[in-house]
Amino acid sequence: MTTEVTSWTGAGPHPAASVRRITDDLLQRVEDKLASFLTAERDRYAAMDERALAAVDALTDLVTSGGKRVRPTFCITGYLAAGGDPRDPGIVAAAAGLEMLHVSALIHDDILDNSAQRRGKPTIHTLYGDLHDSHGWRGESRRFGEGIGILIGNLALVYSQELVCQAPPAVLAEWHRLCSEVNIGQCLDVCAAAEFSADPQLSRLVALIKSGRYTIHRPLVMGANAASRPDLAAAYVEYGEAVGEAFQLRDDLLDAFGDSTETGKPTGLDFTQHKMTLLLGWAMQRDTHIRTLMTEPGHTPEEVRRRLEDTEVPKDVERHIADLVEQGRAAIADAPIDPQWRQELADMAVRAAYRTN
Amino acid sequence: MTTEVTSWTGAGPHPAASVRRITDDLLQRVEDKLASFLTAERDRYAAMDERALAAVDALTDLVTSGGKRVRPTFCITGYLAAGGDPRDPGIVAAAAGLEMLHVSALIHDDILDNSAQRRGKPTIHTLYGDLHDSHGWRGESRRFGEGIGILIGNLALVYSQELVCQAPPAVLAEWHRLCSEVNIGQCLDVCAAAEFSADPQLSRLVALIKSGRYTIHRPLVMGANAASRPDLAAAYVEYGEAVGEAFQLRDDLLDAFGDSTETGKPTGLDFTQHKMTLLLGWAMQRDTHIRTLMTEPGHTPEEVRRRLEDTEVPKDVERHIADLVEQGRAAIADAPIDPQWRQELADMAVRAAYRTN
Repeated sequence: MTTEVTSWTGAGPHPAASVRRITDDLLQRVEDKLASFLTAERDRYAAMDERALAAVDALTDLVTSGGKRVRPTFCITGYLAAGGDPRDPGIVAAAAGLEMLHVSALIHDDILDNSAQRRGKPTIHTLYGDLHDSHGWRGESRRFGEGIGILIGNLALVYSQELVCQAPPAVLAEWHRLCSEVNIGQCLDVCAAAEFSADPQLSRLVALIKSGRYTIHRPLVMGANAASRPDLAAAYVEYGEAVGEAFQLRDDLLDAFGDSTETGKPTGLDFTQHKMTLLLGWAMQRDTHIRTLMTEPGHTPEEVRRRLEDTEVPKDVERHIADLVEQGRAAIADAPIDPQWRQELADMAVRAAYRTN
Repeated sequence: MTTEVTSWTGAGPHPAASVRRITDDLLQRVEDKLASFLTAERDRYAAMDERALAAVDALTDLVTSGGKRVRPTFCITGYLAAGGDPRDPGIVAAAAGLEMLHVSALIHDDILDNSAQRRGKPTIHTLYGDLHDSHGWRGESRRFGEGIGILIGNLALVYSQELVCQAPPAVLAEWHRLCSEVNIGQCLDVCAAAEFSADPQLSRLVALIKSGRYTIHRPLVMGANAASRPDLAAAYVEYGEAVGEAFQLRDDLLDAFGDSTETGKPTGLDFTQHKMTLLLGWAMQRDTHIRTLMTEPGHTPEEVRRRLEDTEVPKDVERHIADLVEQGRAAIADAPIDPQWRQELADMAVRAAYRTN
């Protein structure tokens, strides 16, 4: 369960060359689709006014600056495992739409968290805020930077919708649920952090909405539905809930103990933003000293991190992650899919749970 | 050209009872659609967790708090004038989507402008910022309020997409253009205000994108396309460009000289936010004193407003508005539509140009 994984498209423990080749080929077509879509938009606005290009260019920079393409990978794998035709351009559009939506969420999240870095570069609202400041423009630099961030995030959001409208209509119901739910989940998360609500039930609901459903099971079900296999939904949901929780716990661990040069974003943000993460909820229930550090003012993220390291919590969480990966594999053990794809989904559960960025 | 108009669905100067009745009936169905859509969402989240309802309820409050329904009215009229079947639920979904998109834009605009009031009530980011402050929650009240505003605006944006996906697919191309363009137009507007660029060409482009296309001609063309009448696009575009400019100039005049108890939002915001509106661009080109007041620091919105009143600018603008209304009527004079609907569109040009809120 400590398999070293270098990339989402890299080899799992039991690689099946043909499965990997087909997935990688589709993921490359997702990249091409994102690039050609954004180039067409750039050309449209270039013909209107050069000044209109800045927004499209800023978005393109972020879309092409890396990213693990986790949601496109689950969508494509859900589709191929369901027997979908790899030549169909519709699934490429659906996967590209999922990635574009995620980029929109990242741009807006970075405003909500006042985060300065993303994928190793300044975040969009920081970039524009600094631009405003250095030119001495009118108004407030913060409002300008965050305003442009809101609008470029919106642009990515409407582009995601346009892309998914090119997918088979069978994906739309799941897509619309995903889109509204992720915003409701974010509202709950922001409110819980502000109220500092130590409510494990709420932390689990937020993780379920924001990680399980958004990242894993709705992308998988979109893939299954695109392949006209709605019968796979139940297995994909069960797999997604388990693997999504593992994915979120790893996210919390990376934020607490990860290396920001590897993740491309600042670490310790959850502590600074008072996020009631699954990890912290878990820790506060098991360790009264952590609870004191978290609830009383004046303690630094570094103190919380050091105390966490001194407890059994990280080890307990690792054990729980391993259990969740097993649950995910069990959920698809009897699903009517080709064994090669079952293995690929099992490998993906490991990659999601043991990623390092 | 100074026809008194009380409401968007009220009688124009030459009312045709049947035309009005059909339009009003469809607009009522748009209200019902918005209400039933939001109720279904509320029920879905109520079953999940009571705390998830706050976002849907805040959005519902704003959607049902009035609003002129300008874009649904143009969409429906464009459809009916093109001979569309009034019983088709698809056009109702398209018009409801346009209104939901507009509500999203209002929520986000109010953050960009730091505006405290909308439709006579506190704006969403103000409401949540104050809530945070009064409870002494963790973190910064401003970031919390604006963060929730971003997310509820996003929720309205994704709901608008879900609604339009229920419309005839023929509306989608125009819809997607409208959605991306309005965000690009907003970026240009925010940048022009920050740089205080007195560039009349840019002001006109922004007004064309944000008022003409967003408010009038793309909703009209969506209606025509839903009725399978793409041949009407050229006439609708010409009408929309003229009437949209008149609509925007009236907006600028209402911001400068209007009554905030009637508009439901603060006046003088354009001056405060250094917005290079069509009206100000016009004034700065004609009056050097206005240019000085605008470009040199320390002058209040009230001084700009008083100086504007002392010039010929408001009278010139009124004459230009009257010309634009005439241009709009001329654009549809020969369009192959029923004379009753031609008259209705002509009346709507007057109502758009001479509204008081």
